[in-house]
Amino acid sequence: MGTQDQALRIEVRVELKAGVMDPEAETVEKSLGLLGIAPVARVSTARVYVLEFHGVDRSRADALAREAVDRLLANPVIHRVTVTPLLD
Amino acid sequence: MGTQDQALRIEVRVELKAGVMDPEAETVEKSLGLLGIAPVARVSTARVYVLEFHGVDRSRADALAREAVDRLLANPVIHRVTVTPLLD
Repeated sequence: MGTQDQALRIEVRVELKAGVMDPEAETVEKSLGLLGIAPVARVSTARVYVLEFHGVDRSRADALAREAVDRLLANPVIHRVTVTPLLD
Repeated sequence: MGTQDQALRIEVRVELKAGVMDPEAETVEKSLGLLGIAPVARVSTARVYVLEFHGVDRSRADALAREAVDRLLANPVIHRVTVTPLLD
């Protein structure tokens, strides 16, 4: 089996930029307080997408993942994005 | 500054178990196909919560994070959860 046939997995992590409202995180903070899990001072959230590529090499998969981020998965006005190849 | 005063961050990653429907991932798969980013064979998603603790030591923070998972952040019927201390 050549490298072209292996599945390549790339993780895209989309977080909100500092200063952007995160209502889900605020709700979790409040709920933890109500549950008595009080030393949690701050919660932040992130959305993770794992993209699995077939039939392409790693550099092509990386370029396609970045294209997916730019065109679909994130909004550069409010999001900070991390793209990480998963080694498996 | 003692260890009790440092902020401890713990990352909780909530994924869907295999076999559980993931409509958001399906939508991303379809949209990537429509955009011509075709070699993406499969997409999976995860929700990440970063919990920041103050005034507790690491083992207590870890126990509280697991309590937060059990009581609020995840449903064991459909979710697979990973709890990871962040070293910073």
